[in-house]
Amino acid sequence: MKIAILGFGTVGSGVYEILKKNGDLIGRRANEEISIKYIVELRDFSSHPDAALFTNNYNTVLDDKEVSVVVEMIGGVNVAYNFTKSAILAGKNVVTSNKALVAAHGAELFALAKENGVHYLYEASVGGGIPIIRPIGNCLAANRIKRVMGILNGTTNYILTKMIEEGRSFDKALSEAQQKGYAEADPSADIEGHDTCRKIAILSSLIFGKNVDYTRISTEGINTIEPEDVEYAQALDCSIKLIGMARIGEDKVFARVSPMLISNDNPLAGVSDVYNAVMLTGDSVGDVMFYGSGAGKLPTASAVVSDIIDLARGIPEASRLEWAAGDGSYVTPMAETKTTVLLRSSVEIEDATCVDIGLEDEKGYIICNISEGELASLVKRTTGIKKFIRM
Amino acid sequence: MKIAILGFGTVGSGVYEILKKNGDLIGRRANEEISIKYIVELRDFSSHPDAALFTNNYNTVLDDKEVSVVVEMIGGVNVAYNFTKSAILAGKNVVTSNKALVAAHGAELFALAKENGVHYLYEASVGGGIPIIRPIGNCLAANRIKRVMGILNGTTNYILTKMIEEGRSFDKALSEAQQKGYAEADPSADIEGHDTCRKIAILSSLIFGKNVDYTRISTEGINTIEPEDVEYAQALDCSIKLIGMARIGEDKVFARVSPMLISNDNPLAGVSDVYNAVMLTGDSVGDVMFYGSGAGKLPTASAVVSDIIDLARGIPEASRLEWAAGDGSYVTPMAETKTTVLLRSSVEIEDATCVDIGLEDEKGYIICNISEGELASLVKRTTGIKKFIRM
Repeated sequence: MKIAILGFGTVGSGVYEILKKNGDLIGRRANEEISIKYIVELRDFSSHPDAALFTNNYNTVLDDKEVSVVVEMIGGVNVAYNFTKSAILAGKNVVTSNKALVAAHGAELFALAKENGVHYLYEASVGGGIPIIRPIGNCLAANRIKRVMGILNGTTNYILTKMIEEGRSFDKALSEAQQKGYAEADPSADIEGHDTCRKIAILSSLIFGKNVDYTRISTEGINTIEPEDVEYAQALDCSIKLIGMARIGEDKVFARVSPMLISNDNPLAGVSDVYNAVMLTGDSVGDVMFYGSGAGKLPTASAVVSDIIDLARGIPEASRLEWAAGDGSYVTPMAETKTTVLLRSSVEIEDATCVDIGLEDEKGYIICNISEGELASLVKRTTGIKKFIRM
Repeated sequence: MKIAILGFGTVGSGVYEILKKNGDLIGRRANEEISIKYIVELRDFSSHPDAALFTNNYNTVLDDKEVSVVVEMIGGVNVAYNFTKSAILAGKNVVTSNKALVAAHGAELFALAKENGVHYLYEASVGGGIPIIRPIGNCLAANRIKRVMGILNGTTNYILTKMIEEGRSFDKALSEAQQKGYAEADPSADIEGHDTCRKIAILSSLIFGKNVDYTRISTEGINTIEPEDVEYAQALDCSIKLIGMARIGEDKVFARVSPMLISNDNPLAGVSDVYNAVMLTGDSVGDVMFYGSGAGKLPTASAVVSDIIDLARGIPEASRLEWAAGDGSYVTPMAETKTTVLLRSSVEIEDATCVDIGLEDEKGYIICNISEGELASLVKRTTGIKKFIRM
C-alpha cells in the first residue's frame, strides 16, 4: 500500500518515524507492506535522508494511481478541505488528525467518501493517541450511549494541574506551560475552550449519529479561573477540570464546554498534566473511561497509523465511522438546559429560581439547581455574585 | 443472523436482555437483524416468555445450518471446550466470555476457527464490558506494546478498597463483599489471584503474539494483606492493588500476579470498588488506560454483543485477534526476574543482595531492588522479616 503525507510538521513527521521504526511489525499486522511514496511540503527538505520523497506538487499525488491513502496533516479548514475533497474524488482514502475540518465538514466528507468507495478516517482528531473513535463505533455498539464527558485538551489540563497541585495563578501556570512547549504563543484556541469544543462536537456527532453543530455549543474556557476557585473546589473534595460534555434528550443533543467541579471520586478528577480522558455512559456497559496522551508527535501519529493499518486490512461497509448531516436545531439552546452550579457570593442570594440544595457556609457559597437561562439572568441582576462554576 | 446461546446464567440472560432491549439499534448498526434461535439449557424455563427458544439438545443447534453464531456462556474448561470445538467444526462462529477456556486452549481454538473459516471471539473474557481485546488488536497496532498491567478482578478490588478507605480487616471486607454478591461463597478463585492469572495470560498472549502459559505465571492473592500493610502503603503515598502484569524481554515474557504498591500518581491507584482497568505502554502512544465495569450481567453481555455485531458486519482476515501456540519456556522463570520490594522487618536487614535505595525509618521498612530468587532466599533465612510487597 502506497501512501502520501500532506504536511511534514509535528504529526506528519511522527507518522514517517513510526512507519520507519515499526515498518516490519506494521507490515505483518496490516498483511501488506505500507510505504510512503510522497511527502508533500512547500518547505525545503533537500537535506532530509529521504529527500527524494518530497514534492511541492499535490497534483503528482492525485494523478498517481498507486497512491491509495492520503494522510492530511495540514490542519485548518480551507486548504485542508479542498485537498481532502480532491483526494476523495480521485478515489483515495484520507486519514486525518484535523479536528477543525472534521467538526466543520465531517458529515459532507463521509458522504463523499462513501459515494466514491473510499474512507475518511479521523481517530487522531480526538484524544491524540487514545483509542476512542473506533471503540465508540465498534466495541460499544451494543449500547445506547447516553452521555460523553471528557478532558480533551492537554494544555488547559496542564495549567489547571499546576493551579491545583502547586497553587499557581492562571498567568503563572500559563507561562510555565508555554516554556515547556505545552502551550502555544497564542494560547487562545486552547484556553478559551475552542479546541475542546471541536472535539466534543466530533464525539457527540459520532455517538448520536447526526451532526452536532460546533458553533451552537456553549463554550467557556479556563481564563477566568482563580486560585480561590481551586480552594472552593478542594473544600468540596472536587477538582476543577475543563470538560467537554454532551448528552442526548428526547430528540436533541445538549452539549457544553466549561470548567466544572468534578468530584474526586470520579476517575476524571485524577487525570492530570497533559493527559486526556473520555468517559462514556452506556445503557448496558455503564461508565467506561479511556485515558492517555491527548497530544504529542508520536501518540497522535500512532492513532494516524492505526487508521492506515485498518485501511490495509479492509474495513467492512457496515463499520463506517460516520454521521449524518443535521442543522443547528439538533443542539438544545443553552438557556433551556438545567444545570447544577456553585455560586460564590458576597450577598445573600434569595431568589425563587435558585434552590438551595444544601451547602452554605461562612465562605458564602451556595449550590443551585437552575436553568442556564435563569442563571444568566440571576447573575446579571445580582451584583454580589462573584463567580459560578458548574458541577 | 441467527444465533444460539449456550447457558442461560447471568451473562447469557444479559445477552438475551440486550438483544431484546436494543434490537432495533443493534440491527441498524450490524446492518442485519440479529435474532436468537435457540437457548440451550438443561434447567426448566417452560414459563419463560420465550420458552419456545429453549432446548436441552445441543445437537439441534449444531445441525441447524441457519445458526451462524454460538454464544458459549457455560464457563469452565471441559464441557465448554468440547461444545466450542464441535461448533467450530460445524462451521459456526463462537463468541465467549470464558476466560478459563481462552487461557487454556485459545491458540488451538483460533487455529481451528481459521481452518474452518470462522472466528472465535472473546472480548468479554477480560475486563467485562471494557473494550480491551479489540483496541489492542486494532487501535494500537502501530505500537510495540512493552508492558501491560491491570486491575482485572472486581471482587478483590472491592475488598482492597474497603480495607483502604474504611480500615476494614481482610475477613470483614470479604464478608461484606459476599453479602453484596460481589464475592462467591467460595471466593478462592478471586482472592488467590487465579482469575487475574487467566486474564493476564490472555492479554499478554494477544499482545506478544504467542501463548503465555498461565500455569507458569507466578500468582499470589490478597488473602495475606493486613491493615498494617495498608498503613505502610499510605505512608508511601501508594495504594495496594492486586495487579496482573506482563512485559516482554529479549525473547521471553515475564508475567506475574501479586498485590503491589501503586503510587497514587498512577491512574491505576484511583480505580476503586468493583471497577477494573488495564494500562498498556506502547513505544509510540506511551501509557493508555481503559477503565470500566469489570464484571456484572449487562456490562459483560455488552462486550459479548459487540463481538456478535462484529461478526454480522464482517471481520477482515487480517484483523483476527489471535495468538500462536507456544511452550512453557516462553515465560521467564520467576526467580530470574528483578523486582522492587518493600520489606517490613523487625530486625536490621544487612544483606549484599538487598540494596537499600532510600527510605528506612523507625517503622522498620526498607525498599530493595532484588531478584525474585534472592528475595525468596532472603525471606527464608531472615526470621525477622514480617512481610514483603512488590512495588
